Amino acid sequence: DIVRTVENYFTPVQQDFKNVKILITAGGTREPIDPVRYIGNRSSGKMGYAIAEAAAKRGAAVTLISGVTTLTASAGIKVIKVETAKEMQQHVEANFASNDVIVMAAAVADYAVAEVSEQKIKKASEKLSLELVKNPDILLGLGQKKQQNQLLIGFAAETQNLLKYAQDKLQRKNLDMIIANDVSKVNAGFNVDTNIVKIIGKNNLVEDIPLIKKTALASIILDKINKLKTH
Amino acid sequence: DIVRTVENYFTPVQQDFKNVKILITAGGTREPIDPVRYIGNRSSGKMGYAIAEAAAKRGAAVTLISGVTTLTASAGIKVIKVETAKEMQQHVEANFASNDVIVMAAAVADYAVAEVSEQKIKKASEKLSLELVKNPDILLGLGQKKQQNQLLIGFAAETQNLLKYAQDKLQRKNLDMIIANDVSKVNAGFNVDTNIVKIIGKNNLVEDIPLIKKTALASIILDKINKLKTH
Repeated sequence: DIVRTVENYFTPVQQDFKNVKILITAGGTREPIDPVRYIGNRSSGKMGYAIAEAAAKRGAAVTLISGVTTLTASAGIKVIKVETAKEMQQHVEANFASNDVIVMAAAVADYAVAEVSEQKIKKASEKLSLELVKNPDILLGLGQKKQQNQLLIGFAAETQNLLKYAQDKLQRKNLDMIIANDVSKVNAGFNVDTNIVKIIGKNNLVEDIPLIKKTALASIILDKINKLKTH
Repeated sequence: DIVRTVENYFTPVQQDFKNVKILITAGGTREPIDPVRYIGNRSSGKMGYAIAEAAAKRGAAVTLISGVTTLTASAGIKVIKVETAKEMQQHVEANFASNDVIVMAAAVADYAVAEVSEQKIKKASEKLSLELVKNPDILLGLGQKKQQNQLLIGFAAETQNLLKYAQDKLQRKNLDMIIANDVSKVNAGFNVDTNIVKIIGKNNLVEDIPLIKKTALASIILDKINKLKTH
């Protein structure tokens, strides 16, 4: 509503991320099969973009490495567009060392097509076997390289055993925090404006966040990062 | 420019598609792999939507069966949203008999995943083999059912042997016209506002259309359909 908009306009946002460099990934990657087909995923990029926008408003210098999405970022946010997991990895690694906080919200493809066809595959046989090979685990690599002054935040999008998978991922990938969401729930996860998540810290304390707008969740995540920073 | 816009506004569009029922498909289909991943294609839906908009302006009753796209159609166009090739087939076949002109501009997946996983596939093995099975050939089925008073128009998006494939498709699928484009060319095919095509008629006469806006190409295609109608 307009009153709220005007209020927000005149209420200065707390600049608690001033002098903080934050690297955020968002959206899904695409792994080409041939010139016209690809393996994609349903990530809309909304969660990562919401964090990028909120961080920029709070004074952070934001670099956003964006997979496929229809969203656009505000002026002042440095956006690097990528398509494949390999391109994502290249740009994340090039920007990792120079950032204080790294939030990996993108849905990166776990597998790529082993041999991408240069020409459109013709419809011939009744069956077709598509050979896939594992993509590099970007987050795992960052966790191994992480310095003491850096915070690494991950996401876990699952359809079962959410908490178990997320806690395991936090430990194994040396994360400081993980946001876990069950993408099989209505109003949570991909391509909607809301989410239902669990936020898990290094101490394995789990906080349940019921149905919330992704923009509001972005603020909560930044508040938590801020606490970790000042500890 | 504004002069042109005002001129167009006051120049009544010829209602040469009045009393014509036209069924148009547009966009790409998605074939799910698991709850978060799918096989997609790079179709933007721009060509099919441009034909739908132009036909509606010229007086046609338009049914648009739309795969995945970020586009929206004008009021007055009946839009049916689908995701998979099977859903596309179901709605195309339900609407086929009641339409005079059928323009199949959608990029329908040739293959679907044999066994869609109900849960998100976990990244485990280094390699993964994805088994695909051929989807029904919607256009072929329509060509076999086509009545004398119906016109069936297809598209061929290729990266090689364009003319040969398109001419073969026209014959084999009993089309009245096919629009062939080489999607490996810059400024042609997927996700751009322009196209470079060959329009091929039943007589196998080939007309080359150099770089053109998809909106202008839509008008040319409708002009040609109009000629076929009145013959």
